[in-house]
Amino acid sequence: MTTRVTCCQIPLRIGDTTGNQITATAAIEAAATDGAQIVVLPELASSGYVFADRAELESLAETRDGPAITAWANLAEAFDLTIVAGFPEAAGGKVYNSAAVVDRSGLRGVYRKAHLWDTENNVFDRADDLPLLIDTAHGRIGVMICYDVEFPEWVRAVALAGADLLCAPVNWPLLPRPDGERPTEQVRALAGAGMNRMPLAVCDRAGVERGQDWVGGSVITDANGYPMAIAEYCTPGSITADVDLAQSRIKRFNDNNDVHGDRRTDLYRRTALLD
Amino acid sequence: MTTRVTCCQIPLRIGDTTGNQITATAAIEAAATDGAQIVVLPELASSGYVFADRAELESLAETRDGPAITAWANLAEAFDLTIVAGFPEAAGGKVYNSAAVVDRSGLRGVYRKAHLWDTENNVFDRADDLPLLIDTAHGRIGVMICYDVEFPEWVRAVALAGADLLCAPVNWPLLPRPDGERPTEQVRALAGAGMNRMPLAVCDRAGVERGQDWVGGSVITDANGYPMAIAEYCTPGSITADVDLAQSRIKRFNDNNDVHGDRRTDLYRRTALLD
Repeated sequence: MTTRVTCCQIPLRIGDTTGNQITATAAIEAAATDGAQIVVLPELASSGYVFADRAELESLAETRDGPAITAWANLAEAFDLTIVAGFPEAAGGKVYNSAAVVDRSGLRGVYRKAHLWDTENNVFDRADDLPLLIDTAHGRIGVMICYDVEFPEWVRAVALAGADLLCAPVNWPLLPRPDGERPTEQVRALAGAGMNRMPLAVCDRAGVERGQDWVGGSVITDANGYPMAIAEYCTPGSITADVDLAQSRIKRFNDNNDVHGDRRTDLYRRTALLD
Repeated sequence: MTTRVTCCQIPLRIGDTTGNQITATAAIEAAATDGAQIVVLPELASSGYVFADRAELESLAETRDGPAITAWANLAEAFDLTIVAGFPEAAGGKVYNSAAVVDRSGLRGVYRKAHLWDTENNVFDRADDLPLLIDTAHGRIGVMICYDVEFPEWVRAVALAGADLLCAPVNWPLLPRPDGERPTEQVRALAGAGMNRMPLAVCDRAGVERGQDWVGGSVITDANGYPMAIAEYCTPGSITADVDLAQSRIKRFNDNNDVHGDRRTDLYRRTALLD
Protein backbone atom coordinates (compact mmCIF):
# COMPACT_ATOMS: atom_id res chain seq x y z
CA MET A 1 0.00 0.00 0.00
CA THR A 2 1.30 3.41 -0.89
CA THR A 3 0.47 6.94 0.16
CA ARG A 4 0.33 9.72 -2.42
CA VAL A 5 2.52 12.59 -1.31
CA THR A 6 2.67 15.95 -3.10
CA CYS A 7 5.05 18.84 -2.53
CA CYS A 8 3.72 22.13 -3.89
CA GLN A 9 6.75 24.15 -4.94
CA ILE A 10 4.79 27.38 -5.22
CA PRO A 11 5.99 30.91 -5.87
CA LEU A 12 5.61 33.22 -2.88
CA ARG A 13 5.53 37.00 -2.60
CA ILE A 14 6.79 38.66 0.55
CA GLY A 15 3.95 40.23 2.51
CA ASP A 16 1.19 39.13 0.13
CA THR A 17 -0.62 36.78 2.49
CA THR A 18 -3.80 36.90 0.43
CA GLY A 19 -2.06 36.18 -2.83
CA ASN A 20 0.08 33.45 -1.25
CA GLN A 21 -3.05 31.78 0.11
CA ILE A 22 -4.71 31.89 -3.32
CA THR A 23 -1.60 30.29 -4.82
CA ALA A 24 -1.48 27.63 -2.10
CA THR A 25 -5.17 26.85 -2.38
CA ALA A 26 -4.92 26.32 -6.12
CA ALA A 27 -1.92 24.00 -5.68
CA ILE A 28 -3.60 22.05 -2.87
CA GLU A 29 -6.83 21.66 -4.86
CA ALA A 30 -4.88 20.41 -7.86
CA ALA A 31 -2.99 17.95 -5.66
CA ALA A 32 -6.25 16.71 -4.15
CA THR A 33 -7.77 16.23 -7.59
CA ASP A 34 -4.71 14.16 -8.45
CA GLY A 35 -5.34 11.94 -5.43
CA ALA A 36 -2.84 13.37 -2.97
CA GLN A 37 -3.22 12.25 0.62
CA ILE A 38 -0.36 14.21 2.17
CA VAL A 39 0.49 17.70 0.88
CA VAL A 40 3.57 19.67 1.90
CA LEU A 41 3.92 23.43 1.33
CA PRO A 42 7.10 25.50 1.69
CA GLU A 43 8.53 27.13 4.79
CA LEU A 44 6.78 30.43 5.59
CA ALA A 45 4.22 29.67 2.91
CA SER A 46 1.80 32.31 4.15
CA SER A 47 4.18 35.25 4.36
CA GLY A 48 7.20 34.84 2.14
CA TYR A 49 10.70 34.87 3.60
CA VAL A 50 12.84 37.95 3.01
CA PHE A 51 11.60 40.19 5.82
CA ALA A 52 12.96 43.74 5.91
CA ASP A 53 13.06 43.64 9.70
CA ARG A 54 11.41 42.28 12.82
CA ALA A 55 8.54 44.77 12.48
CA GLU A 56 7.63 43.46 9.04
CA LEU A 57 7.83 39.89 10.28
CA GLU A 58 5.59 40.73 13.24
CA SER A 59 3.06 42.32 10.91
CA LEU A 60 2.85 39.03 8.96
CA ALA A 61 2.95 36.60 11.87
CA GLU A 62 -0.21 34.69 12.78
CA THR A 63 -1.47 32.76 15.74
CA ARG A 64 -2.48 29.12 15.54
CA ASP A 65 -6.10 30.17 14.95
CA GLY A 66 -5.12 32.70 12.29
CA PRO A 67 -6.20 32.84 8.65
CA ALA A 68 -3.43 30.65 7.19
CA ILE A 69 -4.00 27.63 9.40
CA THR A 70 -7.74 28.12 9.16
CA ALA A 71 -7.58 28.07 5.37
CA TRP A 72 -5.32 25.00 5.31
CA ALA A 73 -7.55 23.20 7.81
CA ASN A 74 -10.61 23.93 5.68
CA LEU A 75 -8.87 22.48 2.63
CA ALA A 76 -7.73 19.47 4.63
CA GLU A 77 -11.31 18.82 5.71
CA ALA A 78 -12.78 19.40 2.27
CA PHE A 79 -10.40 17.00 0.54
CA ASP A 80 -9.45 14.69 3.42
CA LEU A 81 -5.81 15.72 3.25
CA THR A 82 -2.99 15.92 5.73
CA ILE A 83 -1.23 19.24 5.05
CA VAL A 84 2.15 20.33 6.38
CA ALA A 85 2.92 24.02 5.84
CA GLY A 86 5.15 26.73 7.18
CA PHE A 87 4.08 30.07 8.65
CA PRO A 88 5.48 32.78 10.95
CA GLU A 89 3.89 32.12 14.31
CA ALA A 90 2.98 34.89 16.74
CA ALA A 91 2.91 33.64 20.32
CA GLY A 92 3.01 35.91 23.37
CA GLY A 93 5.29 38.55 21.91
CA LYS A 94 7.56 35.95 20.30
CA VAL A 95 7.67 35.08 16.64
CA TYR A 96 8.72 31.61 15.55
CA ASN A 97 9.51 30.07 12.18
CA SER A 98 6.87 27.35 12.49
CA ALA A 99 5.16 24.60 10.54
CA ALA A 100 1.67 23.30 11.14
CA VAL A 101 0.11 19.91 10.50
CA VAL A 102 -3.61 20.00 9.76
CA ASP A 103 -5.96 17.22 8.74
CA ARG A 104 -9.73 16.71 8.49
CA SER A 105 -9.97 17.03 12.26
CA GLY A 106 -8.26 20.45 12.26
CA LEU A 107 -4.90 21.52 13.64
CA ARG A 108 -2.87 18.52 14.79
CA GLY A 109 0.33 20.19 15.86
CA VAL A 110 2.89 22.94 15.32
CA TYR A 111 6.68 22.69 15.18
CA ARG A 112 8.98 25.66 15.79
CA LYS A 113 12.29 25.61 13.94
CA ALA A 114 15.25 24.81 16.17
CA HIS A 115 18.15 25.65 13.82
CA LEU A 116 17.85 29.17 12.44
CA TRP A 117 19.46 30.13 9.14
CA ASP A 118 21.50 33.30 8.70
CA THR A 119 19.39 36.46 9.16
CA GLU A 120 16.52 34.46 10.65
CA ASN A 121 18.59 34.84 13.79
CA ASN A 122 17.96 38.59 13.65
CA VAL A 123 14.18 38.48 13.34
CA PHE A 124 12.88 35.18 14.71
CA ASP A 125 12.92 33.87 18.24
CA ARG A 126 14.76 30.62 18.63
CA ALA A 127 12.63 27.71 19.78
CA ASP A 128 13.36 24.71 21.93
CA ASP A 129 10.98 22.28 20.27
CA LEU A 130 11.91 18.71 19.49
CA PRO A 131 10.93 17.50 16.00
CA LEU A 132 7.15 17.17 15.75
CA LEU A 133 5.60 13.73 15.41
CA ILE A 134 1.96 13.34 14.39
CA ASP A 135 0.19 10.01 14.01
CA THR A 136 -2.10 10.03 11.01
CA ALA A 137 -4.11 7.49 9.07
CA HIS A 138 -1.09 7.18 6.77
CA GLY A 139 1.52 6.68 9.45
CA ARG A 140 3.61 8.79 11.75
CA ILE A 141 4.64 12.09 10.17
CA GLY A 142 7.74 13.87 11.38
CA VAL A 143 8.17 17.58 10.80
CA MET A 144 11.18 19.86 10.75
CA ILE A 145 12.04 22.99 8.77
CA CYS A 146 14.76 23.76 6.23
CA TYR A 147 18.18 24.13 7.91
CA ASP A 148 17.06 21.62 10.56
CA VAL A 149 17.43 18.88 7.90
CA GLU A 150 21.16 19.67 7.64
CA PHE A 151 21.72 18.44 11.18
CA PRO A 152 21.99 14.67 11.00
CA GLU A 153 21.33 14.53 14.74
CA TRP A 154 17.90 16.05 14.17
CA VAL A 155 17.03 13.73 11.29
CA ARG A 156 18.24 10.75 13.30
CA ALA A 157 16.21 11.84 16.31
CA VAL A 158 12.94 12.06 14.41
CA ALA A 159 13.63 8.69 12.77
CA LEU A 160 14.42 7.08 16.12
CA ALA A 161 11.10 8.47 17.35
CA GLY A 162 9.38 6.44 14.67
CA ALA A 163 8.64 8.87 11.86
CA ASP A 164 7.39 7.04 8.76
CA LEU A 165 7.73 10.14 6.59
CA LEU A 166 9.75 13.25 7.28
CA CYS A 167 7.99 16.32 5.91
CA ALA A 168 10.21 19.36 5.62
CA PRO A 169 8.97 22.74 4.44
CA VAL A 170 12.04 24.64 3.23
CA ASN A 171 13.16 27.85 1.55
CA TRP A 172 16.53 26.90 0.13
CA PRO A 173 18.37 30.02 -1.06
CA LEU A 174 20.10 29.61 -4.41
CA LEU A 175 23.85 29.43 -3.74
CA PRO A 176 26.69 28.71 -6.16
CA ARG A 177 27.39 25.06 -6.91
CA PRO A 178 29.46 23.18 -9.45
CA ASP A 179 27.84 22.48 -12.81
CA GLY A 180 25.87 19.27 -12.82
CA GLU A 181 25.78 18.94 -9.05
CA ARG A 182 22.63 18.76 -7.02
CA PRO A 183 22.50 21.46 -4.35
CA THR A 184 24.20 20.30 -1.18
CA GLU A 185 21.01 20.83 0.86
CA GLN A 186 19.30 18.27 -1.35
CA VAL A 187 22.21 15.84 -1.08
CA ARG A 188 22.07 16.12 2.69
CA ALA A 189 18.34 15.45 2.70
CA LEU A 190 18.75 12.36 0.49
CA ALA A 191 21.49 11.06 2.76
CA GLY A 192 19.39 11.60 5.85
CA ALA A 193 16.51 9.65 4.36
CA GLY A 194 18.69 6.72 3.34
CA MET A 195 20.76 6.53 6.51
CA ASN A 196 17.55 6.20 8.50
CA ARG A 197 15.41 4.26 6.04
CA MET A 198 12.85 7.04 6.39
CA PRO A 199 11.13 8.45 3.30
CA LEU A 200 11.31 12.20 3.11
CA ALA A 201 9.27 14.94 1.43
CA VAL A 202 11.02 18.29 1.13
CA CYS A 203 8.94 21.15 -0.23
CA ASP A 204 10.93 24.10 -1.49
CA ARG A 205 9.62 27.30 -3.08
CA ALA A 206 10.04 29.39 -6.19
CA GLY A 207 9.83 33.08 -7.01
CA VAL A 208 12.58 35.66 -6.68
CA GLU A 209 11.95 37.81 -3.61
CA ARG A 210 13.80 41.07 -2.93
CA GLY A 211 16.64 39.80 -5.12
CA GLN A 212 16.80 36.37 -3.49
CA ASP A 213 16.27 33.37 -5.77
CA TRP A 214 15.60 29.86 -4.49
CA VAL A 215 16.91 26.43 -5.41
CA GLY A 216 13.51 24.91 -6.07
CA GLY A 217 14.86 21.62 -4.82
CA SER A 218 11.70 19.84 -3.71
CA VAL A 219 12.21 16.10 -3.53
CA ILE A 220 10.32 13.03 -2.38
CA THR A 221 12.39 9.94 -1.58
CA ASP A 222 11.87 6.28 -0.89
CA ALA A 223 13.20 4.63 2.26
CA ASN A 224 16.56 4.07 0.59
CA GLY A 225 17.02 7.79 0.11
CA TYR A 226 16.69 7.67 -3.67
CA PRO A 227 14.47 10.33 -5.26
CA MET A 228 11.03 9.18 -6.38
CA ALA A 229 10.14 12.67 -7.60
CA ILE A 230 12.34 15.70 -7.89
CA ALA A 231 11.42 19.24 -8.89
CA GLU A 232 12.85 21.28 -11.72
CA TYR A 233 15.24 23.74 -10.08
CA CYS A 234 14.17 27.38 -9.74
CA THR A 235 10.77 26.62 -11.27
CA PRO A 236 7.29 26.55 -9.75
CA GLY A 237 5.51 23.22 -9.90
CA SER A 238 4.28 20.32 -7.80
CA ILE A 239 5.90 16.92 -7.52
CA THR A 240 4.10 13.75 -6.50
CA ALA A 241 5.12 10.23 -5.54
CA ASP A 242 3.33 7.15 -4.22
CA VAL A 243 5.43 6.27 -1.21
CA ASP A 244 5.41 2.98 0.68
CA LEU A 245 5.59 4.40 4.18
CA ALA A 246 5.58 0.93 5.74
CA GLN A 247 9.15 0.57 4.45
CA SER A 248 10.18 2.97 7.20
CA ARG A 249 9.38 0.30 9.76
CA ILE A 250 12.03 -2.02 8.31
CA LYS A 251 15.33 -0.69 9.57
CA ARG A 252 17.06 -4.00 8.86
CA PHE A 253 18.27 -4.20 5.26
CA ASN A 254 20.21 -7.46 5.13
CA ASP A 255 20.79 -10.47 7.37
CA ASN A 256 23.29 -8.62 9.52
CA ASN A 257 22.61 -4.91 9.31
CA ASP A 258 20.08 -2.44 10.65
CA VAL A 259 20.47 1.30 10.15
CA HIS A 260 19.55 2.03 13.72
CA GLY A 261 20.60 -1.17 15.44
CA ASP A 262 24.12 -0.85 14.05
CA ARG A 263 24.76 2.48 15.77
CA ARG A 264 27.61 2.21 18.27
CA THR A 265 26.09 4.37 20.96
CA ASP A 266 28.57 2.82 23.41
CA LEU A 267 31.32 4.51 21.43
CA TYR A 268 29.40 7.68 20.53
CA ARG A 269 29.16 8.44 24.23
CA ARG A 270 32.95 8.67 24.30
CA THR A 271 32.96 11.40 21.63
CA ALA A 272 32.14 15.12 21.73
CA LEU A 273 28.78 14.58 20.00
CA LEU A 274 26.67 16.09 22.78
CA ASP A 275 29.26 18.41 24.33
CA MET B 1 48.00 26.21 -0.18
CA THR B 2 46.66 22.89 -1.31
CA THR B 3 47.53 19.27 -0.65
CA ARG B 4 47.51 16.76 -3.48
CA VAL B 5 45.37 13.79 -2.52
CA THR B 6 45.11 10.61 -4.59
CA CYS B 7 42.76 7.67 -4.15
CA CYS B 8 44.00 4.52 -5.88
CA GLN B 9 40.90 2.60 -6.94
CA ILE B 10 42.82 -0.58 -7.63
CA PRO B 11 41.57 -4.05 -8.54
CA LEU B 12 42.12 -6.61 -5.79
CA ARG B 13 42.19 -10.41 -5.85
CA ILE B 14 41.11 -12.36 -2.81
CA GLY B 15 44.05 -14.09 -1.17
CA ASP B 16 46.66 -12.77 -3.59
CA THR B 17 48.63 -10.67 -1.14
CA THR B 18 51.69 -10.58 -3.38
CA GLY B 19 49.74 -9.55 -6.46
CA ASN B 20 47.73 -6.98 -4.53
CA GLN B 21 50.94 -5.45 -3.20
CA ILE B 22 52.38 -5.24 -6.70
CA THR B 23 49.20 -3.50 -7.86
CA ALA B 24 49.26 -1.12 -4.91
CA THR B 25 52.92 -0.32 -5.35
CA ALA B 26 52.45 0.57 -8.99
CA ALA B 27 49.51 2.82 -8.16
CA ILE B 28 51.35 4.51 -5.30
CA GLU B 29 54.45 5.11 -7.41
CA ALA B 30 52.34 6.61 -10.17
CA ALA B 31 50.62 8.85 -7.65
CA ALA B 32 53.95 9.95 -6.22
CA THR B 33 55.26 10.75 -9.69
CA ASP B 34 52.17 12.90 -10.17
CA GLY B 35 52.99 14.83 -7.01
CA ALA B 36 50.63 13.18 -4.56
CA GLN B 37 51.21 13.96 -0.89
CA ILE B 38 48.45 11.86 0.64
CA VAL B 39 47.50 8.51 -0.91
CA VAL B 40 44.49 6.44 0.08
CA LEU B 41 44.09 2.75 -0.80
CA PRO B 42 40.92 0.64 -0.45
CA GLU B 43 39.68 -1.27 2.56
CA LEU B 44 41.45 -4.63 2.95
CA ALA B 45 43.86 -3.62 0.19
CA SER B 46 46.33 -6.36 1.04
CA SER B 47 43.95 -9.31 1.14
CA GLY B 48 40.80 -8.71 -0.86
CA TYR B 49 37.39 -8.87 0.79
CA VAL B 50 35.21 -11.89 0.04
CA PHE B 51 36.60 -14.37 2.57
CA ALA B 52 35.23 -17.90 2.43
CA ASP B 53 35.34 -18.15 6.19
CA ARG B 54 37.19 -17.08 9.33
CA ALA B 55 40.01 -19.52 8.60
CA GLU B 56 40.73 -17.91 5.25
CA LEU B 57 40.62 -14.47 6.82
CA GLU B 58 43.02 -15.59 9.56
CA SER B 59 45.40 -16.93 6.93
CA LEU B 60 45.51 -13.49 5.29
CA ALA B 61 45.61 -11.34 8.41
CA GLU B 62 48.83 -9.52 9.31
CA THR B 63 50.26 -7.87 12.36
CA ARG B 64 51.28 -4.23 12.46
CA ASP B 65 54.84 -5.21 11.55
CA GLY B 66 53.72 -7.48 8.72
CA PRO B 67 54.57 -7.27 5.02
CA ALA B 68 51.74 -4.99 3.94
CA ILE B 69 52.43 -2.18 6.38
CA THR B 70 56.16 -2.63 5.88
CA ALA B 71 55.79 -2.23 2.13
CA TRP B 72 53.53 0.82 2.47
CA ALA B 73 55.91 2.39 4.99
CA ASN B 74 58.84 1.86 2.64
CA LEU B 75 56.93 3.57 -0.16
CA ALA B 76 55.91 6.40 2.17
CA GLU B 77 59.55 6.94 3.09
CA ALA B 78 60.83 6.68 -0.48
CA PHE B 79 58.36 9.24 -1.82
CA ASP B 80 57.58 11.27 1.32
CA LEU B 81 53.94 10.26 1.27
CA THR B 82 51.27 9.83 3.86
CA ILE B 83 49.46 6.58 2.99
CA VAL B 84 46.16 5.36 4.41
CA ALA B 85 45.34 1.74 3.56
CA GLY B 86 43.18 -1.10 4.78
CA PHE B 87 44.33 -4.56 5.88
CA PRO B 88 43.06 -7.46 7.99
CA GLU B 89 44.82 -7.10 11.32
CA ALA B 90 45.87 -10.09 13.42
CA ALA B 91 46.15 -9.19 17.08
CA GLY B 92 46.22 -11.70 19.90
CA GLY B 93 43.83 -14.21 18.33
CA LYS B 94 41.49 -11.49 17.12
CA VAL B 95 41.18 -10.28 13.56
CA TYR B 96 40.08 -6.72 12.88
CA ASN B 97 39.11 -4.89 9.72
CA SER B 98 41.77 -2.20 10.11
CA ALA B 99 43.36 0.71 8.33
CA ALA B 100 46.91 1.97 8.83
CA VAL B 101 48.44 5.41 8.43
CA VAL B 102 52.11 5.40 7.46
CA ASP B 103 54.41 8.25 6.57
CA ARG B 104 58.16 8.79 6.13
CA SER B 105 58.61 8.12 9.84
CA GLY B 106 56.87 4.74 9.64
CA LEU B 107 53.62 3.51 11.10
CA ARG B 108 51.67 6.40 12.64
CA GLY B 109 48.52 4.63 13.73
CA VAL B 110 45.93 1.95 13.09
CA TYR B 111 42.15 2.20 13.21
CA ARG B 112 39.87 -0.82 13.66
CA LYS B 113 36.45 -0.61 12.03
CA ALA B 114 33.65 -0.02 14.50
CA HIS B 115 30.61 -0.64 12.26
CA LEU B 116 30.80 -4.03 10.53
CA TRP B 117 28.99 -4.67 7.26
CA ASP B 118 26.92 -7.79 6.66
CA THR B 119 29.04 -10.97 6.68
CA GLU B 120 32.01 -9.12 8.18
CA ASN B 121 30.11 -9.79 11.40
CA ASN B 122 30.72 -13.52 10.87
CA VAL B 123 34.47 -13.36 10.35
CA PHE B 124 35.87 -10.19 11.94
CA ASP B 125 36.05 -9.23 15.57
CA ARG B 126 34.24 -6.04 16.38
CA ALA B 127 36.44 -3.23 17.65
CA ASP B 128 35.84 -0.45 20.13
CA ASP B 129 38.16 2.13 18.55
CA LEU B 130 37.19 5.75 18.16
CA PRO B 131 37.98 7.27 14.75
CA LEU B 132 41.72 7.64 14.30
CA LEU B 133 43.28 11.09 14.20
CA ILE B 134 46.85 11.59 13.00
CA ASP B 135 48.61 14.94 12.84
CA THR B 136 50.71 15.20 9.71
CA ALA B 137 52.61 17.92 7.89
CA HIS B 138 49.47 18.43 5.81
CA GLY B 139 47.02 18.68 8.68
CA ARG B 140 45.06 16.36 10.89
CA ILE B 141 43.93 13.23 9.08
CA GLY B 142 40.89 11.33 10.31
CA VAL B 143 40.42 7.69 9.41
CA MET B 144 37.41 5.41 9.31
CA ILE B 145 36.42 2.48 7.12
CA CYS B 146 33.57 1.94 4.67
CA TYR B 147 30.24 1.40 6.51
CA ASP B 148 31.52 3.68 9.31
CA VAL B 149 31.00 6.64 6.95
CA GLU B 150 27.28 5.88 6.82
CA PHE B 151 26.92 6.78 10.49
CA PRO B 152 26.65 10.54 10.68
CA GLU B 153 27.52 10.34 14.36
CA TRP B 154 30.92 8.88 13.46
CA VAL B 155 31.62 11.46 10.77
CA ARG B 156 30.53 14.23 13.10
CA ALA B 157 32.73 12.87 15.88
CA VAL B 158 35.89 12.86 13.78
CA ALA B 159 35.12 16.34 12.49
CA LEU B 160 34.52 17.64 16.03
CA ALA B 161 37.90 16.16 16.93
CA GLY B 162 39.47 18.44 14.34
CA ALA B 163 40.05 16.27 11.28
CA ASP B 164 41.12 18.37 8.31
CA LEU B 165 40.64 15.49 5.88
CA LEU B 166 38.65 12.33 6.40
CA CYS B 167 40.33 9.40 4.64
CA ALA B 168 38.09 6.39 4.20
CA PRO B 169 39.24 3.14 2.64
CA VAL B 170 36.09 1.36 1.44
CA ASN B 171 34.87 -1.69 -0.45
CA TRP B 172 31.41 -0.61 -1.58
CA PRO B 173 29.50 -3.60 -2.95
CA LEU B 174 27.58 -2.89 -6.13
CA LEU B 175 23.88 -2.78 -5.22
CA PRO B 176 20.92 -1.85 -7.41
CA ARG B 177 20.19 1.86 -7.76
CA PRO B 178 17.97 3.95 -10.00
CA ASP B 179 19.39 4.96 -13.38
CA GLY B 180 21.37 8.16 -13.21
CA GLU B 181 21.67 8.14 -9.44
CA ARG B 182 24.95 8.14 -7.58
CA PRO B 183 25.23 5.20 -5.17
CA THR B 184 23.71 6.05 -1.83
CA GLU B 185 27.01 5.35 -0.03
CA GLN B 186 28.61 8.11 -2.10
CA VAL B 187 25.73 10.50 -1.43
CA ARG B 188 26.09 9.86 2.29
CA ALA B 189 29.82 10.55 2.13
CA LEU B 190 29.28 13.82 0.24
CA ALA B 191 26.68 14.89 2.78
CA GLY B 192 28.97 14.08 5.69
CA ALA B 193 31.75 16.17 4.21
CA GLY B 194 29.52 19.17 3.59
CA MET B 195 27.65 19.06 6.90
CA ASN B 196 30.97 19.22 8.72
CA ARG B 197 32.95 21.39 6.32
CA MET B 198 35.53 18.58 6.26
CA PRO B 199 37.07 17.47 2.95
CA LEU B 200 36.87 13.75 2.42
CA ALA B 201 38.80 11.18 0.39
CA VAL B 202 37.01 7.87 -0.11
CA CYS B 203 39.01 5.15 -1.86
CA ASP B 204 36.91 2.33 -3.27
CA ARG B 205 38.13 -0.71 -5.21
CA ALA B 206 37.51 -2.50 -8.48
CA GLY B 207 37.69 -6.10 -9.63
CA VAL B 208 34.92 -8.72 -9.38
CA GLU B 209 35.71 -11.12 -6.56
CA ARG B 210 33.90 -14.44 -6.08
CA GLY B 211 30.96 -12.99 -7.96
CA GLN B 212 30.90 -9.71 -6.03
CA ASP B 213 31.29 -6.52 -8.04
CA TRP B 214 32.05 -3.13 -6.51
CA VAL B 215 30.72 0.36 -7.02
CA GLY B 216 34.07 1.94 -7.74
CA GLY B 217 32.82 5.10 -6.12
CA SER B 218 36.05 6.77 -5.03
CA VAL B 219 35.57 10.48 -4.48
CA ILE B 220 37.53 13.44 -3.15
CA THR B 221 35.51 16.44 -1.95
CA ASP B 222 36.08 20.01 -0.96
CA ALA B 223 34.95 21.35 2.40
CA ASN B 224 31.49 22.07 0.99
CA GLY B 225 30.99 18.40 0.19
CA TYR B 226 31.12 18.88 -3.58
CA PRO B 227 33.24 16.38 -5.53
CA MET B 228 36.61 17.64 -6.74
CA ALA B 229 37.42 14.27 -8.33
CA ILE B 230 35.18 11.27 -8.77
CA ALA B 231 36.03 7.84 -10.14
CA GLU B 232 34.43 6.08 -13.04
CA TYR B 233 32.14 3.48 -11.52
CA CYS B 234 33.20 -0.17 -11.58
CA THR B 235 36.51 0.72 -13.22
CA PRO B 236 40.07 0.65 -11.91
CA GLY B 237 41.87 3.99 -11.84
CA SER B 238 43.22 6.67 -9.58
CA ILE B 239 41.62 10.04 -8.88
CA THR B 240 43.49 13.11 -7.68
CA ALA B 241 42.56 16.52 -6.34
CA ASP B 242 44.42 19.47 -4.85
CA VAL B 243 42.51 20.06 -1.65
CA ASP B 244 42.65 23.16 0.52
CA LEU B 245 42.67 21.43 3.89
CA ALA B 246 42.77 24.75 5.77
CA GLN B 247 39.14 25.21 4.73
CA SER B 248 38.26 22.57 7.28
CA ARG B 249 39.20 24.99 10.03
CA ILE B 250 36.48 27.42 8.96
CA LYS B 251 33.25 25.99 10.28
CA ARG B 252 31.48 29.35 9.97
CA PHE B 253 30.09 29.86 6.48
CA ASN B 254 28.12 33.11 6.78
CA ASP B 255 27.68 35.90 9.32
CA ASN B 256 25.31 33.87 11.43
CA ASN B 257 25.97 30.19 10.83
CA ASP B 258 28.59 27.62 11.78
CA VAL B 259 28.15 23.94 10.96
CA HIS B 260 29.27 22.87 14.39
CA GLY B 261 28.33 25.90 16.46
CA ASP B 262 24.72 25.71 15.27
CA ARG B 263 24.18 22.23 16.70
CA ARG B 264 21.49 22.27 19.36
CA THR B 265 23.14 19.87 21.76
CA ASP B 266 20.82 21.19 24.49
CA LEU B 267 17.96 19.68 22.52
CA TYR B 268 19.81 16.61 21.22
CA ARG B 269 20.25 15.51 24.83
CA ARG B 270 16.47 15.27 25.08
CA THR B 271 16.32 12.78 22.17
CA ALA B 272 17.14 9.08 21.86
CA LEU B 273 20.41 9.78 20.02
CA LEU B 274 22.64 8.04 22.54
CA ASP B 275 20.14 5.57 24.01
